[in-house]
Amino acid sequence: MTDLTTAKGVYVIAPTAFHDDGRVDEASNDRLTDFFVESGATGITVLGQMGEAPKLDMEESVSIASRMIRRAGIPIVVGVSAPGFAAMKSLTAAVMDAGAAGVMIAPPNTLRTDDQIVAYYAQAAEAIGADVPFVIQDYPLSFSVVMTPGVIRRIVQANPSCVMLKHEDWPGLEKISALRGFQKDGSMKPISILCGNGGLFLDFECERGADGAMTGYAFPDMLVDVVRMHAEGQRDAAHDLFDAHLPLVRYEQQQGVGLAVRKYVLKRRGILASEAQRRPGAGLTPTARAEVDYLLSRVARFDRRADLGAVKAA
Amino acid sequence: MTDLTTAKGVYVIAPTAFHDDGRVDEASNDRLTDFFVESGATGITVLGQMGEAPKLDMEESVSIASRMIRRAGIPIVVGVSAPGFAAMKSLTAAVMDAGAAGVMIAPPNTLRTDDQIVAYYAQAAEAIGADVPFVIQDYPLSFSVVMTPGVIRRIVQANPSCVMLKHEDWPGLEKISALRGFQKDGSMKPISILCGNGGLFLDFECERGADGAMTGYAFPDMLVDVVRMHAEGQRDAAHDLFDAHLPLVRYEQQQGVGLAVRKYVLKRRGILASEAQRRPGAGLTPTARAEVDYLLSRVARFDRRADLGAVKAA
Amino acid sequence: MTDLTTAKGVYVIAPTAFHDDGRVDEASNDRLTDFFVESGATGITVLGQMGEAPKLDMEESVSIASRMIRRAGIPIVVGVSAPGFAAMKSLTAAVMDAGAAGVMIAPPNTLRTDDQIVAYYAQAAEAIGADVPFVIQDYPLSFSVVMTPGVIRRIVQANPSCVMLKHEDWPGLEKISALRGFQKDGSMKPISILCGNGGLFLDFECERGADGAMTGYAFPDMLVDVVRMHAEGQRDAAHDLFDAHLPLVRYEQQQGVGLAVRKYVLKRRGILASEAQRRPGAGLTPTARAEVDYLLSRVARFDRRADLGAVKAA
Amino acid sequence: MTDLTTAKGVYVIAPTAFHDDGRVDEASNDRLTDFFVESGATGITVLGQMGEAPKLDMEESVSIASRMIRRAGIPIVVGVSAPGFAAMKSLTAAVMDAGAAGVMIAPPNTLRTDDQIVAYYAQAAEAIGADVPFVIQDYPLSFSVVMTPGVIRRIVQANPSCVMLKHEDWPGLEKISALRGFQKDGSMKPISILCGNGGLFLDFECERGADGAMTGYAFPDMLVDVVRMHAEGQRDAAHDLFDAHLPLVRYEQQQGVGLAVRKYVLKRRGILASEAQRRPGAGLTPTARAEVDYLLSRVARFDRRADLGAVKAA
Repeated sequence: MTDLTTAKGVYVIAPTAFHDDGRVDEASNDRLTDFFVESGATGITVLGQMGEAPKLDMEESVSIASRMIRRAGIPIVVGVSAPGFAAMKSLTAAVMDAGAAGVMIAPPNTLRTDDQIVAYYAQAAEAIGADVPFVIQDYPLSFSVVMTPGVIRRIVQANPSCVMLKHEDWPGLEKISALRGFQKDGSMKPISILCGNGGLFLDFECERGADGAMTGYAFPDMLVDVVRMHAEGQRDAAHDLFDAHLPLVRYEQQQGVGLAVRKYVLKRRGILASEAQRRPGAGLTPTARAEVDYLLSRVARFDRRADLGAVKAA
Repeated sequence: MTDLTTAKGVYVIAPTAFHDDGRVDEASNDRLTDFFVESGATGITVLGQMGEAPKLDMEESVSIASRMIRRAGIPIVVGVSAPGFAAMKSLTAAVMDAGAAGVMIAPPNTLRTDDQIVAYYAQAAEAIGADVPFVIQDYPLSFSVVMTPGVIRRIVQANPSCVMLKHEDWPGLEKISALRGFQKDGSMKPISILCGNGGLFLDFECERGADGAMTGYAFPDMLVDVVRMHAEGQRDAAHDLFDAHLPLVRYEQQQGVGLAVRKYVLKRRGILASEAQRRPGAGLTPTARAEVDYLLSRVARFDRRADLGAVKAA
Repeated sequence: MTDLTTAKGVYVIAPTAFHDDGRVDEASNDRLTDFFVESGATGITVLGQMGEAPKLDMEESVSIASRMIRRAGIPIVVGVSAPGFAAMKSLTAAVMDAGAAGVMIAPPNTLRTDDQIVAYYAQAAEAIGADVPFVIQDYPLSFSVVMTPGVIRRIVQANPSCVMLKHEDWPGLEKISALRGFQKDGSMKPISILCGNGGLFLDFECERGADGAMTGYAFPDMLVDVVRMHAEGQRDAAHDLFDAHLPLVRYEQQQGVGLAVRKYVLKRRGILASEAQRRPGAGLTPTARAEVDYLLSRVARFDRRADLGAVKAA
Repeated sequence: MTDLTTAKGVYVIAPTAFHDDGRVDEASNDRLTDFFVESGATGITVLGQMGEAPKLDMEESVSIASRMIRRAGIPIVVGVSAPGFAAMKSLTAAVMDAGAAGVMIAPPNTLRTDDQIVAYYAQAAEAIGADVPFVIQDYPLSFSVVMTPGVIRRIVQANPSCVMLKHEDWPGLEKISALRGFQKDGSMKPISILCGNGGLFLDFECERGADGAMTGYAFPDMLVDVVRMHAEGQRDAAHDLFDAHLPLVRYEQQQGVGLAVRKYVLKRRGILASEAQRRPGAGLTPTARAEVDYLLSRVARFDRRADLGAVKAA
């Protein structure tokens, strides 16, 4: 079994491919899987928010995750956040049976106090089973739940099956430093810290001690390169590549719009057959599409992978 | 098929009975069903928040609702609120097949603007099917979503399958008056308005034009009597009975604690075999238990149904 | 100087009297002050939310508080909550100079984590001066800030000038028990706990160990009696009186509507010349007014103080 | 009097300079004023959140704003957001007397429905006086109040004194397009739209029809250049300059940390004598400081203004 506590590199957050009519597009999902592997991802996270997970029913969720697990050959983390522990437990059991490396759990947005947050993860860990490795998703901007470094330490220390932090607090650089400080002073056991938030601070997150990224971006190959260059000590080169993409990273990181941008570019890269989101979903206006095309052309001056040729007439 | 737009009286919010070990207690659920019918309920609402719905998996949910539908012989409304439309659609299809009279949908607590709320209900109605009668749950205290009377009217007018409002805004008396005013001036089609919020304002809600209650309380028979007395024009008598129960109604309406109180009293009334909640759930402290017993003894001076005898030693 | 840590009884939350045209009505405010003292209040809290404090400018605030301090002869606590410490410091200095017994501070609704809440009170205590006695206002329903008993203990222990808790968590009975438990086990120094929330749970709050009430209600004399009867061991009598008022207490405790109800009844009791709120403020509809009159007539069957005679034609 | 409805260019959000001991630093504030004017700003906005306004008392606020108004010679907008209309009215009167061009009003974070937001601005406009030009601050990320384009239109149309939108919704590009569409179809009168949000999307905001920026950044001269280049039709050049700064813009736009970064850079640029924030305020860790220095050195490769020389030893 994969030891996620030492996970490094990039776990790509996978979108879910649909046909224009809303059916799951298995061929495109397969291409996505292959593309992530070829891009150098060390893992994939499926059924996250960006995967349109709430629009999938239980059967579809298990089917998509299982197919990806079988195909990928790299560790798959599955998002199992749910309004209640019953659904969380059922989905976890199914995907762990199918070979998932672990599951990711976001806090419900009703949690307020430190104790409520710590209690929630204890209950979740008990519900899914103490042997199932789980990832804390710390994303206050989206969930309105604020976890201090001390609260994360309490969760990590109380639950042997807590193996990783998906760090997407904002701002969050000092939080990484604080958590790594806890490990250093022996007050917290080592876990993997992979960063989300669309990669907007990946350059410095690595320098602060993060193990890499767990996020989506239409160029996961760029994320992989940045993490690698950092590991190799090529600081300036890592920033040069990152900065070249930053205007597009920023554009794609817009809440709500972001997934539409990502699917649009992944279609232009030839990986998705359709950029459709299952309903209800937001599309891009022609103006937004043109803005993305312009950004791609600018990125392409530095990174040829962004040179996707002329847009075909619709 | 039941026409819920003309529903009156009391739709009791059903808790879900569990054994001490967390398994669903079918015998107790059957007794609950019978008890609600004998209490004069005109309907039952199952799988609401107070029914611990999020702690049930899909199979359990459908099983509990179906069993109640078969047994009750009165209309059953089923809570189908979910973080995504896929789960909402699956559960709705299953319970409507089983004979439910309609479904109840709460807004996700991320909605803010009027248009977002209206759009959400349009999408939900489309997802579950335009032929499925649905109830709007308007409960800002719990969901942080505030619907003006005008927004409710927009939802009602845009969706022919919107048949009822579970009104639990607080304060909410003027809202009932405003909505009935809309019907009177012809700008909104007639719907049933049943009130929740633990019944804390049921006395005046009826006088403002509500059709009755959709809520839980350990004495649904009292709620039935109050609504009936109001309909018969016995204003003082309705208030006398209501006021006698109000200290306990208020105690039971405490968020979080309320369900524990309700199950405790329902056990004392001989209907539930256990007051257990499925984990995670809150219990009553001995002090709280004694407070409830004291309140029962006080209610019993006016209403013999609350005379539950001495508490047995544990 | 008053030692607020041992305060008992009822600190009435004072509304601010205005003329119909929005000017402060000093004569009515004087009558209010006298009325509270005659009702047996042990203290008064002024410039709280229910005092329409945000509608007063600095000069008016100081003037109203100072006048009440001079006139009352009982301890006055002044609400000084503000979006920043500069305004809090200025107002505190002015009212302490005028002879206030202490100030009350509510947490800004942006606070989330335990540490943020504790830090906020430390900063506030430093800003107003370590010698100024202050009251924590714990009112999650209104402020969206949730303080565990442990957080309150941290604030109390860290700040010698923290002398009192205005407890209006809901539900909150177990919280009182927990805090009194902390005092008993020596982990928290003794403070006064006075309860708010419109008095909706005052009966049991006293039994749990609260020292009394700090809240508003159109019959503060009833609150005084209930606290006194409890102290004298007259449990049933205390509940009898409380329960007779409970239908009106509940009605008056509605957010937004409550102040209009209170001013209406205080006008009917002959204390306020006008029930006007400074703009923007909500008034009562004729229907609501009639409901309050009906409730008064029902309370009057038990408590003659509620017999306010027939309503004069407008 | 300045007609703010046609305002263009950059209104810089001014920080407030303090001495290390927390006193207002008038000399530095004067240098800031001069620097903004020399940088090409068309206006300045003072007493905003980034100006640490809540930490200033009334007298300080009026003094700082008045001094800047006298000195600048360009229009000054003053933030007057307050928890109540009394304080808002007093501050507005004082700064308008002193010669302010208008005031900026943010919505209190308790507003939820469309009607509540519209009513709030009507009340505010009445409170400050119908002749005082005001700016809507639309910043959902910070205030949790979401205004649709339709709501903004209702405010603009209902209040002749509404002259400008400080647009900092995120994402917000389509909102600019929608509002400009309203003007085009004649359903909304023309107003100025200046964009905030740290300038993170300024490149495309201009292209969507914004009139410029109202935001802070340690290089307001860059913001001025980008808006100017856009106006001159130099699209690529505008993006080239913007992109060169984007890594630092992004770093400075972190909530909480941002102001510390800005003051640090402004001190390094020789404008502020101290980077101190009045208490409570966050400082930069040595690591964060080094990160900013590294970013400056990278920006300087493209824009010499960012070449601030070596950091002096502390």
